[in-house]
Amino acid sequence: MARDRGTWSKAGRPAVPIPCATSNACAQDHTTDMRDFSADHRWLSINTATLRGAGTLDRIVEACVRHGICAISPWRDQVHAIGLERTTALVRRYGLELSGYCRGGMFPALDAAGRRRALDDNRRAIDEARALDAACLVLVVGSLPGAIEGKPQSKDLFAARNDVRDGIAATLEHARAAAMPLAIEPLHPMYAADRACVNTLEQALDLCDALDPARGGRRGVDGSGRAALGVEGSDRAALGVAVDVYHVWWDPKLEAQIARAGRERLLAFHVCDWLVPTKDLLNDRGMMGDGVIEIAKIRGWIEAAGFAGYSEVEIFSTEDWWQRPEDEVLATCIARHRTCV
Amino acid sequence: MARDRGTWSKAGRPAVPIPCATSNACAQDHTTDMRDFSADHRWLSINTATLRGAGTLDRIVEACVRHGICAISPWRDQVHAIGLERTTALVRRYGLELSGYCRGGMFPALDAAGRRRALDDNRRAIDEARALDAACLVLVVGSLPGAIEGKPQSKDLFAARNDVRDGIAATLEHARAAAMPLAIEPLHPMYAADRACVNTLEQALDLCDALDPARGGRRGVDGSGRAALGVEGSDRAALGVAVDVYHVWWDPKLEAQIARAGRERLLAFHVCDWLVPTKDLLNDRGMMGDGVIEIAKIRGWIEAAGFAGYSEVEIFSTEDWWQRPEDEVLATCIARHRTCV
Repeated sequence: MARDRGTWSKAGRPAVPIPCATSNACAQDHTTDMRDFSADHRWLSINTATLRGAGTLDRIVEACVRHGICAISPWRDQVHAIGLERTTALVRRYGLELSGYCRGGMFPALDAAGRRRALDDNRRAIDEARALDAACLVLVVGSLPGAIEGKPQSKDLFAARNDVRDGIAATLEHARAAAMPLAIEPLHPMYAADRACVNTLEQALDLCDALDPARGGRRGVDGSGRAALGVEGSDRAALGVAVDVYHVWWDPKLEAQIARAGRERLLAFHVCDWLVPTKDLLNDRGMMGDGVIEIAKIRGWIEAAGFAGYSEVEIFSTEDWWQRPEDEVLATCIARHRTCV
Repeated sequence: MARDRGTWSKAGRPAVPIPCATSNACAQDHTTDMRDFSADHRWLSINTATLRGAGTLDRIVEACVRHGICAISPWRDQVHAIGLERTTALVRRYGLELSGYCRGGMFPALDAAGRRRALDDNRRAIDEARALDAACLVLVVGSLPGAIEGKPQSKDLFAARNDVRDGIAATLEHARAAAMPLAIEPLHPMYAADRACVNTLEQALDLCDALDPARGGRRGVDGSGRAALGVEGSDRAALGVAVDVYHVWWDPKLEAQIARAGRERLLAFHVCDWLVPTKDLLNDRGMMGDGVIEIAKIRGWIEAAGFAGYSEVEIFSTEDWWQRPEDEVLATCIARHRTCV
């Protein structure tokens, strides 16, 4: 099952076997031409939540490797279940890149003790992301305290947004010291109560500009052979965004805000699809191509802005994809990556 | 059951019995002090979809009258089921105001014939709203053709938005001639595929400013004794917005965009609540106070901008409120209007 991924190219990219060997000039060139994904899946990453039905993380990793997938983005609970050391060893053994690490955030709390616990947890998440050499730590910032457990303790969205701003500000120095970029993920407004009170790309970028006005300089890439963003230079901000088409596809300002973000702040690109009808607010995401999102159009905007990293597939799907064998899920992800992303 | 509502005050408001007799100076004064809703329900309107479980519109109207409710906002299908003439007679008999008429819109179509049919239907909706002396025709603008039937025929959100812009533009003259203001209702982004591709108040107001830059003048009030907006003057725009807290509560720009709208464009204010968790994207709205929306805060912004009309309760709730007797629903609406709105 294992694949030799031990050698690295001069540019810091793994010397990967087909189908991952496509060289890609536009990653460095700010060209608006989109990369051609039709021939291979070099730039496909699998968010491991997509395979929640497939068991533990080691099994998920081996399935990805079996399908020639070059990158993953694991969730903390899946990492903790098999241990950080074992995960690190697995990732190194197979030469996998991490397009992100899911997730930090969840800053709001009812009291100071709760906010401190959140900061402690975010520092640990940064250290784990660093150990795994992830491209960024994805922040799902949180919202009304208690809401994610179904028992909101507050209705004060302003307070939650203040907690988020202060929490990111307090976390940023540790992130810089660890050279780990933080990627704020604006979530769809239907999650504003329970998961994230940052709900548009514009709002996320306003936060970035307020907390990291200088765009953070070269942290996040120092001393790393990582190419998970498709950019080996020094132009990644310490604070940026993760753009998930599921959360932002509806936004009339999306194209303009992606251009505003620029390559410095575009730290991750997530794909799946919006099904019609959508039967569940959380766990009814669709496979790319099965819904109504013009994914390739959005990728065009992202790439025109300079992003040249992975398209990370993140599908929560209790009733459909989580019920299927992992090999079917991955084969479908690959086929759709080539035709619908 | 019937109540004598035949006499009208000089200001054009019905001389209503308690609990609807509160005079309200701030309606004319642009004061930022909020109206006191705690003592009565003078400014409560019932969107008749809230009583979908209660049978035909005449029965719904009589239930509202029984509870001393001064205004309703009926849906077209409910009106058509008993006939426009019968509805008009009922409304006049009980001296009810109409805080709005639901709904026009649904402009996008795959071909020119479909777009023409939509325009015809919107003209009929305007005429019906005029016959009923509604304060405005609410526009749920539509989105991807076929999506509301669960079979989207297109993914082109740009095309849908163009159809909406052109459709409203083509409808506006008929609306002006009928003195019937059009209220664009921005819908929650979770309805972007199937119900409305206008998803933020900012986007709706951009449309208003593009299509009705002069704010439309005095149309919509000429020759009418209506006070359903709490404004008997000439300062209603021909094209404005319906602000439903359910759709916009999450928006970080909400307060600023309400201020931007101003009294000219604020044509309707709808209330219900966002439940945590929300179990269905369409039909799991909550009663005011049962969710996490800071309704009174939003009403404060609306009133600071000059709106002094009805708070219209619109609750779609298959599993809860539509299962309860109409008297229980209305008694609860009244109690929550006094304490939570």
